[in-house]
Amino acid sequence: MGSQRYCVIMCGGAGTRFWPFSRESRPKQFIDFFGTGQTLLQMTVDRVRRLVPEENMILITNEQYADTVREQLPGVSTEHILLEPTRRDTAPAVLWAAHHIAARNPEASFVTLPSDHVILKETAFQEALRKGFEFVEKGKRLLALGVPAKSPNTSYSYIQKGDPFHSSHTLSHIKTIAEKPGREMAKIFVRSEEFLWNAGIYLGKAKTVIDAFNRDVPDMASRFDVEAFNYLGEAESEFIADIYPKISSLPVEYAIMDRASNSFVLESDLGWSDLSTWNALHGISPKNKDGNVTQNCRSLLYNCKDCIVAAEGDKVVAVWGLKDYIVADTDNALLICPIEAEQRIRNIVNDIRERFGSEFI
Amino acid sequence: MGSQRYCVIMCGGAGTRFWPFSRESRPKQFIDFFGTGQTLLQMTVDRVRRLVPEENMILITNEQYADTVREQLPGVSTEHILLEPTRRDTAPAVLWAAHHIAARNPEASFVTLPSDHVILKETAFQEALRKGFEFVEKGKRLLALGVPAKSPNTSYSYIQKGDPFHSSHTLSHIKTIAEKPGREMAKIFVRSEEFLWNAGIYLGKAKTVIDAFNRDVPDMASRFDVEAFNYLGEAESEFIADIYPKISSLPVEYAIMDRASNSFVLESDLGWSDLSTWNALHGISPKNKDGNVTQNCRSLLYNCKDCIVAAEGDKVVAVWGLKDYIVADTDNALLICPIEAEQRIRNIVNDIRERFGSEFI
Repeated sequence: MGSQRYCVIMCGGAGTRFWPFSRESRPKQFIDFFGTGQTLLQMTVDRVRRLVPEENMILITNEQYADTVREQLPGVSTEHILLEPTRRDTAPAVLWAAHHIAARNPEASFVTLPSDHVILKETAFQEALRKGFEFVEKGKRLLALGVPAKSPNTSYSYIQKGDPFHSSHTLSHIKTIAEKPGREMAKIFVRSEEFLWNAGIYLGKAKTVIDAFNRDVPDMASRFDVEAFNYLGEAESEFIADIYPKISSLPVEYAIMDRASNSFVLESDLGWSDLSTWNALHGISPKNKDGNVTQNCRSLLYNCKDCIVAAEGDKVVAVWGLKDYIVADTDNALLICPIEAEQRIRNIVNDIRERFGSEFI
Repeated sequence: MGSQRYCVIMCGGAGTRFWPFSRESRPKQFIDFFGTGQTLLQMTVDRVRRLVPEENMILITNEQYADTVREQLPGVSTEHILLEPTRRDTAPAVLWAAHHIAARNPEASFVTLPSDHVILKETAFQEALRKGFEFVEKGKRLLALGVPAKSPNTSYSYIQKGDPFHSSHTLSHIKTIAEKPGREMAKIFVRSEEFLWNAGIYLGKAKTVIDAFNRDVPDMASRFDVEAFNYLGEAESEFIADIYPKISSLPVEYAIMDRASNSFVLESDLGWSDLSTWNALHGISPKNKDGNVTQNCRSLLYNCKDCIVAAEGDKVVAVWGLKDYIVADTDNALLICPIEAEQRIRNIVNDIRERFGSEFI
């Protein structure tokens, strides 16, 4: 069965929430976030290596990052790197990947994974994926991985569990998917124990995924509905260059997962974080006794509490008397900002672009 | 008269109070502190250019900084750079300079200047020096420049004025010199209007200076009391290498200025600061409407007040919500510290040396 299993790693996302660490030219999936010597993308690839043969591993990214992906994953052959000519969110990417895989093996199943999240429980992850593959291979089923919601995070998407699948404790139908609830709603979600954090990891057979798009988003699906040879070799990039700009931008969870009666969720405690904020990073990182997190740098913190201090290279950072602060230092930019003001980083980044130019972004 | 006037610029001082900007290998006199393109040493040299001919300009520094001085002052010939083989404070340096100058011109007068201070009122400075030279050339007189004490600074040395010289408003006998008074004492000094900040600038004829040393510190003076040829050419460095390690370390104001009946002070508002602390730097620097001082970097400060933000090169620095803080960033070290805790920088520097090595110091 192994060779029928594919993996699609999404690594085209942009974003400046981790500025100055993430840059337009180097979003967070391409960064060695924890100073371990591996970028988040490389960690993601390593994580699925035991589950999917190397030749079945597919990367999908924006053209802009083609060189970076090749550089970070020298083992992956170029034909397995799908380059999006424009940004169109995850639904078109997943549908393209499904056709690409089906053209190679009509019976294949695949898992699609974000490349910029962190998963601390490797074994639970691999177990969940094995179970997930077996589950979707047994029928026309789509499956999402859901993580027990531990706090009322307002930047996550939540999956509401419906009826259990055959009295399973971990497998349920999906009732709804709710994106970024308000604070109060998020609290209700967590209390109810019906809602799981959506890890953005989806499984299905290639043809089940294609069928779901045909059923739920026929406009988009029809663009991709061409002979298999269009998804092979040089024809593919020409074809995609032609259709991609005309397609709607849509996330996959709304395109097919949210509305389908054959959508399921597998609950698993993956030690997952989408690392979308410095606060999330602080939450999952090892802390010293004062709650401080330091990354990469040689740091000395005096009278500091609950700070994140991150610097590139071997830099020495000495900080005195800060509480709940982000100190993020790179070659040409330094950010010092309270964690609670981190949603303003976007504004800061815009101000800097305007004042000093985009080379700092 | 011009060619009888010499200037001795002291540039051998070390110190880490401005770490990470000042380093052991690059103390603050060698730094372009204000981002003007000139180091404090270069500014000091420029300041006296109109008063003293180029060939009468003498630099005295520690051997360790010989290359730095030559690099920063390519116009100064090597024979005018006196290299101390060991650190011995300012008294031996001034006495050596007096002999060195007397060997060239027994009738010469000279001014000795620190190289790491700032003087904002260039014209007042030049006027004071002209007046000072004339004054000391008229007799066996030693002269210090004193600056009206504007605040009870506890890290300065103070000169107490005695009787006015011939009912002058600006020239007085020196009554005492008091080093680094406590807070309450400093307040009394300022209120009394009898005390001036000691700018560390001294004038005298070479032979008057030598005489004062003979009178007040004969032990030290006798070491230097040799034939003039010992202060010429190659003989000089050999002779100094021999005697210097045996000499006591002593500041010039205590050696000869404090006790002598022929010591005078000239009061002049020079816009002077010894720049010994970040706070002093903050005090004299131009500020934005929120009291923030930014140096060298491209900075964006949000909700910040009374901070100093300094970075090397074209770095972008974004700071949110700090009050009374120092943010000092260099290539391999970053310091974030409340201004009021700046006396602890010394400890931080020691900790860093111990933990990470002296390459960061």
